[in-house]
Amino acid sequence: MSAYPGARADRPTLAVVGATGAVGSVMLQILSTRQDVYGEIRLVASPRSAGRKLSVRGEEVEVVALAPEVFDGVDVAMFDVPDAVSAEWAPVAAERGAVVVDNSGAFRMDDDVPLVVPEVNPEQVRHRPRGIIANPNCTTLSMIVAIGVLHEMYGLSELVVASYQAASGAGQEGVDTLYDQLERVAGKRGLGERPGDIRGVVGGLGPFPAPLALNVVPWAGSLKEDGWSSEELKVRNESRKILGLPDLRVSATCVRVPVVTTHSLAVHAVFDRDVDQREAQAVLAGAPGVVLVDHPEAYEFPTPADVVGTDPTWVGRVRRSLDDPRALDLFLCGDNLRKGAALNTAQIAELVAAELTR
Amino acid sequence: MSAYPGARADRPTLAVVGATGAVGSVMLQILSTRQDVYGEIRLVASPRSAGRKLSVRGEEVEVVALAPEVFDGVDVAMFDVPDAVSAEWAPVAAERGAVVVDNSGAFRMDDDVPLVVPEVNPEQVRHRPRGIIANPNCTTLSMIVAIGVLHEMYGLSELVVASYQAASGAGQEGVDTLYDQLERVAGKRGLGERPGDIRGVVGGLGPFPAPLALNVVPWAGSLKEDGWSSEELKVRNESRKILGLPDLRVSATCVRVPVVTTHSLAVHAVFDRDVDQREAQAVLAGAPGVVLVDHPEAYEFPTPADVVGTDPTWVGRVRRSLDDPRALDLFLCGDNLRKGAALNTAQIAELVAAELTR
Repeated sequence: MSAYPGARADRPTLAVVGATGAVGSVMLQILSTRQDVYGEIRLVASPRSAGRKLSVRGEEVEVVALAPEVFDGVDVAMFDVPDAVSAEWAPVAAERGAVVVDNSGAFRMDDDVPLVVPEVNPEQVRHRPRGIIANPNCTTLSMIVAIGVLHEMYGLSELVVASYQAASGAGQEGVDTLYDQLERVAGKRGLGERPGDIRGVVGGLGPFPAPLALNVVPWAGSLKEDGWSSEELKVRNESRKILGLPDLRVSATCVRVPVVTTHSLAVHAVFDRDVDQREAQAVLAGAPGVVLVDHPEAYEFPTPADVVGTDPTWVGRVRRSLDDPRALDLFLCGDNLRKGAALNTAQIAELVAAELTR
Repeated sequence: MSAYPGARADRPTLAVVGATGAVGSVMLQILSTRQDVYGEIRLVASPRSAGRKLSVRGEEVEVVALAPEVFDGVDVAMFDVPDAVSAEWAPVAAERGAVVVDNSGAFRMDDDVPLVVPEVNPEQVRHRPRGIIANPNCTTLSMIVAIGVLHEMYGLSELVVASYQAASGAGQEGVDTLYDQLERVAGKRGLGERPGDIRGVVGGLGPFPAPLALNVVPWAGSLKEDGWSSEELKVRNESRKILGLPDLRVSATCVRVPVVTTHSLAVHAVFDRDVDQREAQAVLAGAPGVVLVDHPEAYEFPTPADVVGTDPTWVGRVRRSLDDPRALDLFLCGDNLRKGAALNTAQIAELVAAELTR
């Protein structure tokens, strides 16, 4: 039980399921900056992690093992656990009365589960017949706030997306693997000049199908139909659902790059109406959750190294296509652990908390 | 003068201008594998490098300083020097009777200079009223052989390209900068979690506008109109000229990644006719200069680490768009110093040499 001195009894009780993971630890940081939203905060994880103490809002809270009883009295439960764990436990939490905000892929395409980005479709949180609200995939989230405001302005008809995805999208094992490989390639000048020489020195590949240090790997997720990866299909299907555009044309190529955290995307967006470059830049600059950094004459554009650890979607390199007045090309960066995961989950949970508190 | 024992007097005399650069040294390797094409080979560079000895075809050749007389008696001159040097000296060499194959940007868009990729438009080498033939930009070259065969099959109407460009595209300084930065970031676990923390440790940025280690940088080249980079416009304009499609729609976003050598591209290609995925894969598999590696079920696709140092364009992740039967998405890798520069230049020079020898 929380002994947090600021916890008010009239505030909702929150459970964080998956509190010990990479996204979970960012969730606890974010919760610590929002002191007055919740009353009690319960931290839940697998039995293996039960008993550990984690810091949230400045107090130490003991982690409890996932079990049906932990959801008794919980108003909102944020889940960041594997798909199979969510599939089993989110309905249990919902049955016990919690509104579940789930960051797995288990429910995102369920017609009875809204897929919510608070800047784009906040009204959807109320349509939750199963008591579950889904948080989108990190790659989709890294672009959708910016694309959403442009869609509102010009009417989106097509997206062509190429991603530059960070190692932490593959979890802590991905991060550790990248750091390990970097240590092994550093100082070896001449490496990366002969086929396979990098494979010979990087050591273990971790969760990646090829070396990530000094390399890029055109794969993320699992194989789906006709050569598409699950990550690429998520960008297509989730963008369609969030924007309410079931016929939106989407082609994505998802590529892992040797960056620790923050996904980048090169986006070619085609609209129903002609776009104006300056107007599009102004719309992006004024949009909540978006920062425009677009001064190539001063070499100012977003890069992962400058964006990591921040909340917004950063947009730069905004150009109207030279050959299609309805198309814009842009480059976006978003922290895949924050807006791409923990932050958006927390934002959705706060919409629910506000509704329960009102 | 060459004392190469295999040099036959009836073979053309070759000059390599810019022999001491990063591309120049790959040119000498390639020339060493083609022993019977040329008689004498002269190595030319700036006065600063004159007197150095370089190895080609197993013999040591002394580098001579760039001057009008070095082109006397030269049949073919391969240039890999900055644009301004080519602009001044290629016409001098041509005036003295050499056919110039130029790898700078000085002449590529000149109507009187053909832009040649031997697998795509070899017949163009003969239309050279100025005595100059241009070699395309490395990014365009990394994809155009594969795109060329697909165009022949289905008729190309649009390209949307996102690049993953290697440090060596910015020359030896780019390579050295990446190795330096890698040494400085290696072993610092936790780096890449806070905005700007990478900037604090990488040291000099070299030719790049932002850190390249643990980062991606959405910029290559110089600023042109409306926010486009010179590199992005080259992909558009050169693709149009090589394929003979002056109205081809092209949008490119060029991004530098922490890879030493080998450019990768995610390409969304739209055609005039419906495409068939298996047929497109078969066409690519059978095309000269192309290798298809497309077994995602076994995690087999091209990556720079596996492709570097090889001649072909490697293609994988071939997928027909789920929402447009006329569109294909694919991922390509090509060594930017070989096919992207030295190899294509050497191939063009050999077409000229064959014509002169015949």
